[in-house]
Amino acid sequence: MLLRSGDLESAESRFRARLINSASGVRSAVLIGTKSIKGTENLAIFSTVFHVGANPPLIGFLMRPVNRVRHTYENISKTGFFTVNHIPYSARAAAHQTAAQYPEHRSEFEACGFSPEYIEDFFAPFCAESPVRSGCSIEYETEIPANGTRLMVGRILWLDVADGLTAPDGFIDLAKAETAAVSGLDGYHKVGRPERYSYPEPERKPKILKP
Amino acid sequence: MLLRSGDLESAESRFRARLINSASGVRSAVLIGTKSIKGTENLAIFSTVFHVGANPPLIGFLMRPVNRVRHTYENISKTGFFTVNHIPYSARAAAHQTAAQYPEHRSEFEACGFSPEYIEDFFAPFCAESPVRSGCSIEYETEIPANGTRLMVGRILWLDVADGLTAPDGFIDLAKAETAAVSGLDGYHKVGRPERYSYPEPERKPKILKP
Repeated sequence: MLLRSGDLESAESRFRARLINSASGVRSAVLIGTKSIKGTENLAIFSTVFHVGANPPLIGFLMRPVNRVRHTYENISKTGFFTVNHIPYSARAAAHQTAAQYPEHRSEFEACGFSPEYIEDFFAPFCAESPVRSGCSIEYETEIPANGTRLMVGRILWLDVADGLTAPDGFIDLAKAETAAVSGLDGYHKVGRPERYSYPEPERKPKILKP
Repeated sequence: MLLRSGDLESAESRFRARLINSASGVRSAVLIGTKSIKGTENLAIFSTVFHVGANPPLIGFLMRPVNRVRHTYENISKTGFFTVNHIPYSARAAAHQTAAQYPEHRSEFEACGFSPEYIEDFFAPFCAESPVRSGCSIEYETEIPANGTRLMVGRILWLDVADGLTAPDGFIDLAKAETAAVSGLDGYHKVGRPERYSYPEPERKPKILKP
């Protein structure tokens, strides 16, 4: 099925949203944890999280210019801190539910059944159920002019990984962690066992690394 | 395992790179296809592709400020066009190999065993082996000051999805497409069947959508 510009423009808007969203592929699903200056905890699902750099350790995500994510944006803007929590596949329905438009005073931790916890001297709550979680300070943000989406880049101040997931060389096994991946607007996936390959060099076939 | 800023700073650099890269989660692996003004075709693997918007249809990726991706960046800067090709899981080793530092005149399509094809009136080659592929014009780019990484945003001019993968509502089944997901610097994963959930509303449990 080949769709050109004109076909995409004339497509029904929700069909186009599902199609174009799917076309970016399978991504990690994370819950972003924040707290307002009034003390209300917030938890919201995001599917556009990506690696920005390791030194300094940076992680980025995109924020749509829509109502439903306003609490997360306001909390980050005003307090400077957030957590990134990978979602257990078993908690996919509850994580999806954090995208519902709850009133400002209502915590999605409580409404959706997640447990807020804190690391000493860090303002934002993390998700106790998450096997891979990190705490960040906002480092940089900018607007993408074409549609007003905001790029948010955080500096990782701490990283907490459940026992038994990290290889001696630093690789985290996210299949063993049983985290969820997401596709389109509403599809949740398990991921299979990782197969790792050696550093690529020209004219030499990559070897499979032993687990 | 809790690592704080100081632990991350003092970690061995390759360990830190693998760890922080893994911490952003499982992502889609794509091959970006370009062509130089001299006519040399280029194909390179990227793991930081994300959805930016559906109207207009936009897709983004990050480009590290390193040698190995310079051909892709130069080609996009000078010609304005690129393709985004999802990777069949069966071609993961060949796709990984496109990251090797081939000389400028050498096409990774040829070196790694992929077939370049063209859509009428579109400059950049796509990958015939890819079940989900799109053609883009560069719409916006900006540098992330913290580490010189470049954010590239493309406008999707065409989208081509293999038959039998798109649901009537626009959702593309990437598990059926057997595309690869990636984690860390070198881990490749299959993804399981998607489970889809209904639009989230407060105080109502999301329902599983029938496939």
